[in-house]
Amino acid sequence: MDQKSIFVKMALHGWEQEISRAEKFILGLSDEQWQKQIAPDRNSVIYLVGHLIAVNDGILDILGISEKLYPELTAVFVSNPDRSGLEMPSINDLKTYWQTVHQKLNDSFLSMSADDWFSRHTAMTDQDFEVEPSRNKLSVLLGRTRHLSYHMGQIRLVK
Amino acid sequence: MDQKSIFVKMALHGWEQEISRAEKFILGLSDEQWQKQIAPDRNSVIYLVGHLIAVNDGILDILGISEKLYPELTAVFVSNPDRSGLEMPSINDLKTYWQTVHQKLNDSFLSMSADDWFSRHTAMTDQDFEVEPSRNKLSVLLGRTRHLSYHMGQIRLVK
Repeated sequence: MDQKSIFVKMALHGWEQEISRAEKFILGLSDEQWQKQIAPDRNSVIYLVGHLIAVNDGILDILGISEKLYPELTAVFVSNPDRSGLEMPSINDLKTYWQTVHQKLNDSFLSMSADDWFSRHTAMTDQDFEVEPSRNKLSVLLGRTRHLSYHMGQIRLVK
Repeated sequence: MDQKSIFVKMALHGWEQEISRAEKFILGLSDEQWQKQIAPDRNSVIYLVGHLIAVNDGILDILGISEKLYPELTAVFVSNPDRSGLEMPSINDLKTYWQTVHQKLNDSFLSMSADDWFSRHTAMTDQDFEVEPSRNKLSVLLGRTRHLSYHMGQIRLVK
Protein backbone atom coordinates (compact mmCIF):
# COMPACT_ATOMS: atom_id res chain seq x y z
CA MET A 1 0.00 0.00 0.00
CA ASP A 2 1.41 3.40 -0.91
CA GLN A 3 1.70 6.18 1.65
CA LYS A 4 -1.23 8.15 0.35
CA SER A 5 -3.58 5.23 0.59
CA ILE A 6 -2.60 4.81 4.23
CA PHE A 7 -3.73 8.37 5.04
CA VAL A 8 -7.02 7.89 3.23
CA LYS A 9 -7.57 4.56 4.94
CA MET A 10 -6.98 6.13 8.37
CA ALA A 11 -9.46 8.94 7.79
CA LEU A 12 -12.08 6.64 6.25
CA HIS A 13 -11.68 4.14 9.07
CA GLY A 14 -12.49 6.83 11.64
CA TRP A 15 -15.52 7.97 9.65
CA GLU A 16 -16.87 4.45 9.12
CA GLN A 17 -16.39 3.52 12.75
CA GLU A 18 -18.23 6.60 14.02
CA ILE A 19 -21.07 6.31 11.47
CA SER A 20 -21.59 2.64 12.14
CA ARG A 21 -21.70 3.12 15.93
CA ALA A 22 -24.01 6.13 15.55
CA GLU A 23 -26.34 4.26 13.20
CA LYS A 24 -26.59 1.28 15.52
CA PHE A 25 -27.42 3.55 18.44
CA ILE A 26 -29.90 5.80 16.61
CA LEU A 27 -31.84 3.04 14.86
CA GLY A 28 -32.12 1.26 18.20
CA LEU A 29 -33.94 4.13 19.93
CA SER A 30 -37.68 3.97 20.63
CA ASP A 31 -39.97 6.66 19.19
CA GLU A 32 -40.28 8.03 22.71
CA GLN A 33 -36.48 8.35 22.97
CA TRP A 34 -36.31 10.15 19.61
CA GLN A 35 -38.72 12.76 20.98
CA LYS A 36 -36.81 13.29 24.24
CA GLN A 37 -34.53 16.21 24.94
CA ILE A 38 -30.94 15.20 25.74
CA ALA A 39 -31.08 17.45 28.85
CA PRO A 40 -33.73 19.84 30.19
CA ASP A 41 -34.39 22.63 27.64
CA ARG A 42 -31.74 21.26 25.30
CA ASN A 43 -32.00 19.85 21.78
CA SER A 44 -34.23 16.84 21.16
CA VAL A 45 -32.77 13.64 19.74
CA ILE A 46 -34.90 14.05 16.60
CA TYR A 47 -33.44 17.52 16.03
CA LEU A 48 -29.86 16.36 16.53
CA VAL A 49 -30.28 13.36 14.23
CA GLY A 50 -31.90 15.58 11.60
CA HIS A 51 -28.98 17.98 12.04
CA LEU A 52 -26.44 15.21 11.45
CA ILE A 53 -28.30 13.98 8.35
CA ALA A 54 -28.51 17.51 6.92
CA VAL A 55 -24.84 18.29 7.57
CA ASN A 56 -23.62 14.95 6.25
CA ASP A 57 -25.89 15.31 3.19
CA GLY A 58 -23.92 18.49 2.52
CA ILE A 59 -20.73 16.41 2.14
CA LEU A 60 -22.10 15.19 -1.21
CA ASP A 61 -22.21 18.78 -2.39
CA ILE A 62 -18.92 20.02 -0.93
CA LEU A 63 -17.02 17.02 -2.33
CA GLY A 64 -18.65 17.55 -5.74
CA ILE A 65 -20.32 14.11 -5.74
CA SER A 66 -23.88 15.33 -6.27
CA GLU A 67 -26.34 17.92 -5.04
CA LYS A 68 -27.80 17.36 -1.58
CA LEU A 69 -30.40 14.59 -1.51
CA TYR A 70 -32.58 16.40 1.05
CA PRO A 71 -31.88 20.14 0.75
CA GLU A 72 -35.16 20.90 2.57
CA LEU A 73 -33.60 19.62 5.82
CA THR A 74 -31.20 22.57 6.03
CA ALA A 75 -33.88 25.09 7.07
CA VAL A 76 -35.35 22.78 9.72
CA PHE A 77 -32.15 21.33 11.20
CA VAL A 78 -29.28 23.72 10.44
CA SER A 79 -30.39 27.31 9.84
CA ASN A 80 -33.01 27.16 12.60
CA PRO A 81 -32.88 25.84 16.16
CA ASP A 82 -34.99 23.08 17.67
CA ARG A 83 -38.65 23.98 18.35
CA SER A 84 -38.58 26.66 15.63
CA GLY A 85 -42.13 25.75 14.67
CA LEU A 86 -40.98 24.38 11.29
CA GLU A 87 -42.46 20.97 10.54
CA MET A 88 -40.05 18.05 10.94
CA PRO A 89 -40.11 14.86 8.86
CA SER A 90 -41.41 11.77 10.66
CA ILE A 91 -39.03 9.54 12.59
CA ASN A 92 -39.47 6.81 9.98
CA ASP A 93 -38.60 9.21 7.18
CA LEU A 94 -35.50 10.37 9.08
CA LYS A 95 -34.40 6.77 9.51
CA THR A 96 -34.68 6.30 5.73
CA TYR A 97 -32.85 9.59 5.06
CA TRP A 98 -30.04 8.62 7.44
CA GLN A 99 -29.48 5.32 5.67
CA THR A 100 -29.82 6.77 2.17
CA VAL A 101 -27.36 9.63 2.76
CA HIS A 102 -24.74 7.47 4.44
CA GLN A 103 -25.10 4.65 1.92
CA LYS A 104 -24.57 7.09 -0.93
CA LEU A 105 -21.59 8.65 0.84
CA ASN A 106 -19.98 5.31 1.52
CA ASP A 107 -20.54 4.11 -2.07
CA SER A 108 -19.04 7.34 -3.40
CA PHE A 109 -16.05 7.13 -1.05
CA LEU A 110 -15.28 3.62 -2.32
CA SER A 111 -14.89 4.93 -5.87
CA MET A 112 -12.62 7.84 -4.89
CA SER A 113 -8.91 7.49 -5.47
CA ALA A 114 -6.34 8.80 -3.04
CA ASP A 115 -5.67 11.64 -5.51
CA ASP A 116 -9.36 12.59 -5.44
CA TRP A 117 -9.20 12.92 -1.65
CA PHE A 118 -6.22 15.26 -1.86
CA SER A 119 -7.92 17.52 -4.37
CA ARG A 120 -9.66 20.82 -3.76
CA HIS A 121 -13.21 20.77 -2.38
CA THR A 122 -15.94 22.91 -3.96
CA ALA A 123 -15.90 25.56 -1.22
CA MET A 124 -12.22 26.44 -1.96
CA THR A 125 -10.94 28.53 -4.86
CA ASP A 126 -7.97 27.27 -6.89
CA GLN A 127 -5.94 30.17 -5.55
CA ASP A 128 -6.71 29.44 -1.87
CA PHE A 129 -5.98 25.79 -2.44
CA GLU A 130 -2.54 26.53 -3.84
CA VAL A 131 -1.67 28.40 -0.62
CA GLU A 132 -3.28 25.81 1.65
CA PRO A 133 -3.23 22.30 0.14
CA SER A 134 -4.20 20.76 3.48
CA ARG A 135 -7.73 22.13 3.02
CA ASN A 136 -8.67 19.28 0.68
CA LYS A 137 -11.57 16.82 0.47
CA LEU A 138 -10.06 14.60 3.13
CA SER A 139 -9.97 17.52 5.58
CA VAL A 140 -13.74 17.88 5.06
CA LEU A 141 -14.18 14.23 6.03
CA LEU A 142 -12.02 14.65 9.16
CA GLY A 143 -14.00 17.72 10.21
CA ARG A 144 -17.37 16.06 9.65
CA THR A 145 -16.21 13.04 11.64
CA ARG A 146 -15.40 15.27 14.62
CA HIS A 147 -18.77 17.00 14.20
CA LEU A 148 -20.47 13.61 14.35
CA SER A 149 -18.54 12.59 17.50
CA TYR A 150 -19.48 15.89 19.16
CA HIS A 151 -23.22 15.42 18.69
CA MET A 152 -23.14 11.67 19.39
CA GLY A 153 -21.71 12.52 22.82
CA GLN A 154 -24.97 14.42 23.33
CA ILE A 155 -27.41 12.01 21.69
CA ARG A 156 -26.12 9.14 23.81
CA LEU A 157 -27.27 10.95 26.95
CA VAL A 158 -30.85 9.99 26.10
CA LYS A 159 -30.29 6.39 27.23
CA MET B 1 4.99 19.98 0.81
CA ASP B 2 4.71 16.21 0.33
CA GLN B 3 1.46 14.29 0.83
CA LYS B 4 2.58 12.78 4.09
CA SER B 5 3.39 16.17 5.60
CA ILE B 6 0.08 17.55 4.37
CA PHE B 7 -1.80 14.77 6.09
CA VAL B 8 0.13 15.30 9.34
CA LYS B 9 -0.69 18.98 9.14
CA MET B 10 -4.38 18.18 8.65
CA ALA B 11 -4.52 15.88 11.66
CA LEU B 12 -2.56 18.29 13.88
CA HIS B 13 -4.74 21.18 12.78
CA GLY B 14 -7.86 19.29 13.89
CA TRP B 15 -6.30 18.44 17.24
CA GLU B 16 -5.07 21.98 17.91
CA GLN B 17 -8.39 23.49 16.97
CA GLU B 18 -10.36 21.18 19.27
CA ILE B 19 -7.93 21.56 22.18
CA SER B 20 -7.82 25.32 21.92
CA ARG B 21 -11.63 25.64 21.80
CA ALA B 22 -11.98 23.18 24.68
CA GLU B 23 -9.39 25.00 26.79
CA LYS B 24 -11.02 28.37 26.25
CA PHE B 25 -14.39 26.95 27.26
CA ILE B 26 -13.20 24.96 30.28
CA LEU B 27 -10.98 27.65 31.76
CA GLY B 28 -13.86 30.10 31.40
CA LEU B 29 -16.23 28.09 33.60
CA SER B 30 -17.04 29.17 37.16
CA ASP B 31 -16.31 26.81 40.05
CA GLU B 32 -20.04 26.27 40.33
CA GLN B 33 -20.22 25.19 36.67
CA TRP B 34 -17.32 22.77 37.16
CA GLN B 35 -19.32 21.05 39.91
CA LYS B 36 -22.52 20.78 37.89
CA GLN B 37 -23.73 17.64 36.15
CA ILE B 38 -24.14 18.00 32.38
CA ALA B 39 -27.65 16.50 32.70
CA PRO B 40 -29.59 15.04 35.66
CA ASP B 41 -27.72 12.03 37.10
CA ARG B 42 -25.02 12.28 34.44
CA ASN B 43 -21.30 12.99 34.71
CA SER B 44 -20.17 16.22 36.31
CA VAL B 45 -18.02 18.68 34.38
CA ILE B 46 -15.14 18.12 36.80
CA TYR B 47 -15.26 14.38 36.13
CA LEU B 48 -15.35 14.82 32.35
CA VAL B 49 -12.50 17.33 32.36
CA GLY B 50 -10.46 15.02 34.60
CA HIS B 51 -11.27 12.18 32.21
CA LEU B 52 -10.00 14.18 29.22
CA ILE B 53 -6.81 15.14 31.05
CA ALA B 54 -6.16 11.52 32.08
CA VAL B 55 -6.82 10.12 28.60
CA ASN B 56 -4.77 12.80 26.84
CA ASP B 57 -1.96 12.33 29.38
CA GLY B 58 -1.87 8.74 28.15
CA ILE B 59 -0.95 9.96 24.66
CA LEU B 60 2.53 10.77 26.03
CA ASP B 61 2.90 7.13 26.95
CA ILE B 62 1.38 5.51 23.86
CA LEU B 63 3.45 7.70 21.52
CA GLY B 64 6.61 6.88 23.49
CA ILE B 65 7.24 10.51 24.44
CA SER B 66 7.37 10.00 28.20
CA GLU B 67 5.52 8.31 31.02
CA LYS B 68 2.19 9.83 32.05
CA LEU B 69 2.62 13.04 34.04
CA TYR B 70 -0.36 12.28 36.32
CA PRO B 71 -0.85 8.49 36.40
CA GLU B 72 -2.90 8.84 39.59
CA LEU B 73 -5.74 10.37 37.55
CA THR B 74 -6.49 7.08 35.80
CA ALA B 75 -8.14 5.45 38.82
CA VAL B 76 -10.30 8.50 39.58
CA PHE B 77 -11.30 9.49 36.04
CA VAL B 78 -10.95 6.45 33.78
CA SER B 79 -11.17 3.13 35.64
CA ASN B 80 -13.95 4.38 37.91
CA PRO B 81 -17.14 6.33 37.24
CA ASP B 82 -18.11 9.73 38.60
CA ARG B 83 -19.11 9.80 42.30
CA SER B 84 -17.03 6.68 42.99
CA GLY B 85 -16.04 8.11 46.35
CA LEU B 86 -12.41 8.50 45.24
CA GLU B 87 -11.00 11.92 46.07
CA MET B 88 -10.68 14.27 43.10
CA PRO B 89 -7.98 16.92 42.70
CA SER B 90 -9.13 20.52 43.20
CA ILE B 91 -10.45 22.51 40.26
CA ASN B 92 -7.34 24.70 40.37
CA ASP B 93 -5.08 21.67 40.24
CA LEU B 94 -7.04 20.27 37.28
CA LYS B 95 -6.65 23.57 35.44
CA THR B 96 -2.89 23.32 35.94
CA TYR B 97 -2.82 19.66 34.88
CA TRP B 98 -4.85 20.45 31.74
CA GLN B 99 -2.40 23.13 30.68
CA THR B 100 0.70 21.13 31.58
CA VAL B 101 -0.38 17.99 29.72
CA HIS B 102 -1.46 19.83 26.59
CA GLN B 103 1.58 22.10 26.57
CA LYS B 104 3.87 19.08 26.77
CA LEU B 105 1.93 17.30 24.03
CA ASN B 106 2.02 20.29 21.73
CA ASP B 107 5.75 20.86 22.34
CA SER B 108 6.44 17.19 21.61
CA PHE B 109 4.30 17.22 18.48
CA LEU B 110 6.31 20.17 17.13
CA SER B 111 9.50 18.13 17.25
CA MET B 112 8.00 15.08 15.51
CA SER B 113 8.70 14.51 11.82
CA ALA B 114 6.11 13.15 9.40
CA ASP B 115 7.97 9.83 9.50
CA ASP B 116 7.65 9.74 13.28
CA TRP B 117 3.88 10.11 12.99
CA PHE B 118 3.67 7.20 10.59
CA SER B 119 5.63 4.90 12.86
CA ARG B 120 4.30 2.24 15.21
CA HIS B 121 2.85 3.32 18.55
CA THR B 122 3.82 1.54 21.78
CA ALA B 123 0.58 -0.47 22.03
CA MET B 124 1.28 -2.23 18.70
CA THR B 125 3.72 -5.05 18.10
CA ASP B 126 6.07 -4.89 15.11
CA GLN B 127 4.24 -7.84 13.61
CA ASP B 128 0.77 -6.26 13.91
CA PHE B 129 2.13 -3.04 12.50
CA GLU B 130 3.45 -4.77 9.42
CA VAL B 131 -0.05 -6.10 8.68
CA GLU B 132 -1.79 -2.83 9.54
CA PRO B 133 0.44 0.21 8.91
CA SER B 134 -2.53 2.57 9.25
CA ARG B 135 -2.51 1.92 13.00
CA ASN B 136 0.33 4.34 13.56
CA LYS B 137 0.94 7.27 15.93
CA LEU B 138 -1.16 9.60 13.83
CA SER B 139 -4.15 7.26 14.11
CA VAL B 140 -3.85 7.62 17.90
CA LEU B 141 -4.04 11.40 17.53
CA LEU B 142 -7.08 11.18 15.23
CA GLY B 143 -8.85 8.88 17.68
CA ARG B 144 -8.08 11.07 20.70
CA THR B 145 -9.32 14.11 18.79
CA ARG B 146 -12.68 12.39 18.17
CA HIS B 147 -12.78 11.39 21.85
CA LEU B 148 -12.26 15.02 22.82
CA SER B 149 -15.04 16.21 20.47
CA TYR B 150 -17.39 13.59 21.91
CA HIS B 151 -17.00 14.75 25.50
CA MET B 152 -16.87 18.45 24.62
CA GLY B 153 -20.34 18.02 23.09
CA GLN B 154 -21.37 16.99 26.61
CA ILE B 155 -19.36 19.48 28.65
CA ARG B 156 -20.77 22.39 26.64
CA LEU B 157 -24.27 21.52 27.86
CA VAL B 158 -23.37 23.04 31.24
CA LYS B 159 -23.67 26.59 29.89
